[in-house]
Amino acid sequence: MDFVWSDSFARRVARFQGSAVREMFHWAQLPGIISLSAGSPAPELFPVEAFRQAANQVLDEDPVGALQYGITEGYPPLREWIAEHLRGKGISVTADEVMITTGSQQAMDLLVRVLFDAGDLVVVERPTFIATLQALDTCEVEYLSAPMDGDGLIVDELARRLDGRPKLICAQPNFQNPSGVSLSLPRRRQLAQLAAERHIAIVEDDPYSELIYEGDALPSIKSFDQAGLSIYLGSFSKILMPGIRVGWAAGPTAVLEKMAVVKQSNDLHTDGFMQRVVNLLVRNGQLPAHIDRIRKVYRERRDVMLHAIADHFPAEARYTQPRGGLFVWVELPAEVDCGRFVRPAVERLVLFTPGAGFHRDGTGQNTMRLNFSNVEPDRIQEGVKRLGAVVKEQLTKT
Amino acid sequence: MDFVWSDSFARRVARFQGSAVREMFHWAQLPGIISLSAGSPAPELFPVEAFRQAANQVLDEDPVGALQYGITEGYPPLREWIAEHLRGKGISVTADEVMITTGSQQAMDLLVRVLFDAGDLVVVERPTFIATLQALDTCEVEYLSAPMDGDGLIVDELARRLDGRPKLICAQPNFQNPSGVSLSLPRRRQLAQLAAERHIAIVEDDPYSELIYEGDALPSIKSFDQAGLSIYLGSFSKILMPGIRVGWAAGPTAVLEKMAVVKQSNDLHTDGFMQRVVNLLVRNGQLPAHIDRIRKVYRERRDVMLHAIADHFPAEARYTQPRGGLFVWVELPAEVDCGRFVRPAVERLVLFTPGAGFHRDGTGQNTMRLNFSNVEPDRIQEGVKRLGAVVKEQLTKT
Repeated sequence: MDFVWSDSFARRVARFQGSAVREMFHWAQLPGIISLSAGSPAPELFPVEAFRQAANQVLDEDPVGALQYGITEGYPPLREWIAEHLRGKGISVTADEVMITTGSQQAMDLLVRVLFDAGDLVVVERPTFIATLQALDTCEVEYLSAPMDGDGLIVDELARRLDGRPKLICAQPNFQNPSGVSLSLPRRRQLAQLAAERHIAIVEDDPYSELIYEGDALPSIKSFDQAGLSIYLGSFSKILMPGIRVGWAAGPTAVLEKMAVVKQSNDLHTDGFMQRVVNLLVRNGQLPAHIDRIRKVYRERRDVMLHAIADHFPAEARYTQPRGGLFVWVELPAEVDCGRFVRPAVERLVLFTPGAGFHRDGTGQNTMRLNFSNVEPDRIQEGVKRLGAVVKEQLTKT
Repeated sequence: MDFVWSDSFARRVARFQGSAVREMFHWAQLPGIISLSAGSPAPELFPVEAFRQAANQVLDEDPVGALQYGITEGYPPLREWIAEHLRGKGISVTADEVMITTGSQQAMDLLVRVLFDAGDLVVVERPTFIATLQALDTCEVEYLSAPMDGDGLIVDELARRLDGRPKLICAQPNFQNPSGVSLSLPRRRQLAQLAAERHIAIVEDDPYSELIYEGDALPSIKSFDQAGLSIYLGSFSKILMPGIRVGWAAGPTAVLEKMAVVKQSNDLHTDGFMQRVVNLLVRNGQLPAHIDRIRKVYRERRDVMLHAIADHFPAEARYTQPRGGLFVWVELPAEVDCGRFVRPAVERLVLFTPGAGFHRDGTGQNTMRLNFSNVEPDRIQEGVKRLGAVVKEQLTKT
């Protein structure tokens, strides 16, 4: 009898779903294809020369610190910068309450492993970012999928549905991936209060808050948290570049300490060279102007996409009007299965992300996520036109 | 009632032990201290100028590829190089059977999560690298600790003790951390055969094989594996530098594919810039000479340490004579608790790693791990002298 790996797999493997987004990466290589699928920032905005300068400076000034093993919690000056940056947003933390992670996704994975036994309950927004669901799946959690409207997660509705004691509420309050929707100010306050009353931790995943194209930034959920029950995740992927994998978690040391033990066994620490490069980049005085440039480019692309959808999608399509972030979310009539549009779309050389993968309650087949950040305006026009034609064609078939 | 994080912790948290090695990092800052504790390579050997050149070349030639999101399995040219490198060592793999990871430790963590449910059995060498045990602890495994002698894991003894079906044998066959011992050639063959007969997977963790100071390199366990049951982990930490966190797993796609799903939810992919820098460094023609230089420096340091132990440790101390790697392992009489030597050693300004943390069967209190790679020869002399005095003093007390 031969050795068969799957005979040795853990129970959790049965829950694994590949990422619908990452599976698109293969098709994204087809010549002439327009990808509205991935959530990638625009590479023409990467600060390559500033990066080069910072990289050389790190090698001049601290090569050994950068290239030797480092401490698990991260490079102290960068932790200091992050703490200061968060205090500027009304989040009261010290550098000790900040841990550097290998992308903010790692922070989510570490946190989930500290909290969840198989069968434990988690609250997620419906829809939710795929990799968050994947991390939760590895711990074999049970999901409570909370509905959203144009003001984000409907907290009253969540309160009504709460039974059992969920251990964690996962929230992405700003320009959520995938929906593009933001949690309103009153609901932020209300969510922090509900969590305090019911003794539920909150993870506030906030990769997009700097990518705001209109209106005022809203205070974080954490700024309303008096009970020390929330942990805030941030990322440099969208304001600098994602390939370098540097993010952070900020929250009470009671939970960060346990996350650090998991991190020791996961990757020991985050790349010390890259932490130093990022520290120089965020302190070089160019960051505000750089973020303004990103906002300007993405705002234009969002506008082009919204107009193109209005022009080319069928009247039955409902879609969000995001005030920031990277995505527009499209909802088609309930009976439609957007998963079946993928092949015809690839044939017309356009990619989108079907929405079902962002759900764990069996809903969402009639939804799709469209990205506007990593496509030039005329290609957005053309891509949405192609996709609109596919959608119309498919709707007449159903 | 206040919110208390520990009320929400998963069951696994009760098993968490901080790393005895990483806890020493704080003391390592004391002025005048000599640390024989960490397993760090010598930073004066880091190829800083070659790194600078490679970094600038990556930014010249492929800044977008380096800084944008990348594929989970890793940068194809680096996977190609690794596959070729392994084939040169008699390990038959293609690039598709190689996955880049954020240090080889991440590969261990991903593998463990693919295989283990709570209560499943794992075979570990006694002693075993701490971070391997930490990763296993997060999955709440049960341990079968297999004894070693001067030829490594005693396979006959393991075969006798096997009951139940362990899912995995964790082996570090070359210059093991912490013991410094290598698995003999006949036992490599025997271990592969035992695993095939009993349908047990093997993970062969091999960060040190290039650090060989005498004798011939032995073929890997994987080269004897006809059943496709083994996965080989490698690292650039010891031949280039560790701070950059680039390693790999090589093995059957049946298991790598599942590890990739876990990696998606953990850090999406390994730093794309650093993968490209490493790819240039390993292909720049300087690697063989660089490894020779490392061997020469470490061989001298090993010799100095072995002589110093002979000179300064009490006669009751037994210790290994490693033919490579970074560590000497010291065993004192069974009744001694080396954990109690840490404080007096710190007072004398010397650090070592007590051995208990490398065990999960309650043994090992009478052992200690000494590192020679990251200490200059005269400091090794002095450090071992200080430590020998502490050991003698403490032995007379017990």
